[in-house]
Amino acid sequence: MTSPHTLTQTSRQRSFGGWQDVYQHHSDVLACDMNFAVYLPPQAEAQSCPVVYWLSGLTCTEQNFITKAGAQQYAAQHGLIIVAPDTSPRGCKLPGEDDSYDFGSSAGFYLNATQEPWAQHYRMYDYVVTELPGAIAANFPIRETHQGIMGHSMGGYGALMIALRNPGRFKSVSAFAPIVAPPQVPWGKKAFSNYLGSTLSDWLAYDPTHLVKTAPERLPILIDQGDADSFLKEQLQPELFAAACQAVNHPLTLRMQPGYDHSYYFIASFMGDHLAHHAATLVP
Amino acid sequence: MTSPHTLTQTSRQRSFGGWQDVYQHHSDVLACDMNFAVYLPPQAEAQSCPVVYWLSGLTCTEQNFITKAGAQQYAAQHGLIIVAPDTSPRGCKLPGEDDSYDFGSSAGFYLNATQEPWAQHYRMYDYVVTELPGAIAANFPIRETHQGIMGHSMGGYGALMIALRNPGRFKSVSAFAPIVAPPQVPWGKKAFSNYLGSTLSDWLAYDPTHLVKTAPERLPILIDQGDADSFLKEQLQPELFAAACQAVNHPLTLRMQPGYDHSYYFIASFMGDHLAHHAATLVP
Repeated sequence: MTSPHTLTQTSRQRSFGGWQDVYQHHSDVLACDMNFAVYLPPQAEAQSCPVVYWLSGLTCTEQNFITKAGAQQYAAQHGLIIVAPDTSPRGCKLPGEDDSYDFGSSAGFYLNATQEPWAQHYRMYDYVVTELPGAIAANFPIRETHQGIMGHSMGGYGALMIALRNPGRFKSVSAFAPIVAPPQVPWGKKAFSNYLGSTLSDWLAYDPTHLVKTAPERLPILIDQGDADSFLKEQLQPELFAAACQAVNHPLTLRMQPGYDHSYYFIASFMGDHLAHHAATLVP
Repeated sequence: MTSPHTLTQTSRQRSFGGWQDVYQHHSDVLACDMNFAVYLPPQAEAQSCPVVYWLSGLTCTEQNFITKAGAQQYAAQHGLIIVAPDTSPRGCKLPGEDDSYDFGSSAGFYLNATQEPWAQHYRMYDYVVTELPGAIAANFPIRETHQGIMGHSMGGYGALMIALRNPGRFKSVSAFAPIVAPPQVPWGKKAFSNYLGSTLSDWLAYDPTHLVKTAPERLPILIDQGDADSFLKEQLQPELFAAACQAVNHPLTLRMQPGYDHSYYFIASFMGDHLAHHAATLVP
C-alpha cells in the first residue's frame, strides 16, 4: 500500500487562470482508494494560499462541486485553494452499501461508524479531519493556519459539525441548506442508527444543533437556505439550529433565499457570497 | 400534434435571481419532441430582453450548458435571455443513429440533411434558425431586434455558420473552440458526407471559412481557443478561419488561451468575456 500522501493525478484542467485537479490516493483510514479534487488558483504558483474544504451532499462524488458550483472564479479572485473530497468510501463491496441514496455509498455522513459492517471503512470524519488534510499539506502550498470549511446538505452538516468539534482549526465556516439536526430528521436518524447504533450521546457528538450549545469558540456562521427547497420542512429545519445559536448567542447569519431549491443552481447563485465570507477572514 | 409554440415546462429552477427553465415541445421540422433550455434574467420580469442563442457541441443535450457553463450570472448581470437547444433530433430510432459520438444522435451539425435515412428528421438548421425562434418569440419577452448567437465546438461552427448565412439577423456572434472548416476536417467530412452527400457546393453552404469570404455583413466575431485543446490540430484549426477573415478584412478577435482544453472548464473561464461581448451590442 502506498502512503495517503502519495497522489496520482487523474485529471488537470485549466480553469480561471488556475488548475482544477483531481487526484487519487490510498486512504489508510477508509481502507480503500479515494478521489478528491483540488482547485489551485493562479496565486498558488508563487505563494502559499488559504484553503477551504468543500463537503458535498448525498449522491455526490468530488465531481459535482467542481463541474456545477462555479466556485473556481471566486477562488481565483481571492486566491483560495479549494479541496473537495468524495462523500464516502468507494469499492468496499459491503452488503447493502448501494441499496439506497441516503445511506452507504455516497452517504458517508462525515462520521466514524461504530457498527458492523460499516466500522472498518466508513470513517469519513477521520478522513476529512485528519488524513486528507495531511495529504493536502504534504502536496500543496497551503497556509495551514488559514483554513475554512463549507458544504451542502449532508456536507453542510459536515462542515458545521467538524468546525464545532475542532475549535481553533478553522477561521471560517459556512453552509448551503445544511442538515442542522441529524438526530431529529429522517436522513439523520437512518444514517446515525445504522452507523452509530442507538446511544443518544453518540449521536449528539455529531449534531451541530447540540454541539453549538457548548462550543468553546464562537466562529461566525453563514447559512443560505432556499425557501422552495423540497427538503426544507422534513430534513433540514434550519430554525432548530437558529434557535440553538440564539440561546447561546452564537453568531449566525441565516438567509432564507426566496424561490431557491436544493440544487447546484442555488449553490452557484450564492457561491460568490460564501467565498467572500471565507476570504474576509482567510485572506490577509 | 400540438403546435411547436405550445411548450411544456419540464423544470424551473431559481438561478441568480432569475429562472433556469427547460421546456419540451413538438418540433414539426424535426418530426419529434425536443427539449430546450431558457434562462430568464431578473430583468425579464418587467421588460423585454435581448436573447442570445447557445449551440452546444458533440455529445451534448440542453443540460450541459445550463449546468456547467456558469452563464446565468452574466446573463443576470446584463439582462440577457439565453436559449440553449438540444443538439439533434431525439427518439427517431433511425438505423445507426446511436452508433458513434460524432454522427447521428447528439451530432446534428445544425444543418438540413438531404440524404436518407436522415433527411426527414435531421433538419437542425431549420429548427434553430426558424422553428425554435418562433416558439421563443411566442412565449418569452424577447426583443426580436436584439439577438446574438454563440456556441462551442460543433455549436461554435453552428453559431458562425448561422450568423454568416443570415445577415442582419444577429447583432453579435462568438464561439468557443469552433469547428471552423468542416469540409477540411474529419468530424466535418464524416457528418457532411453522410448528411449532405458528396456535392462540394452543398458542403460549402455550411462552411464558415467559405461563407466568410462573401459575407455581405461584417459582424465582428470573437473566438476563444485553448492551446491545450486535444482537438485543435486535427479538427478545429482556427488558423484556416483567421486566414479567410484576414483575406476579406472581416473583423475577427481570435484569442489563443494558454493551457486551456476543450472542456466546460475552458468555456466557463471565458463565458464572462463572451457575454460582455454580446451585451456590448445587444444591451442599450
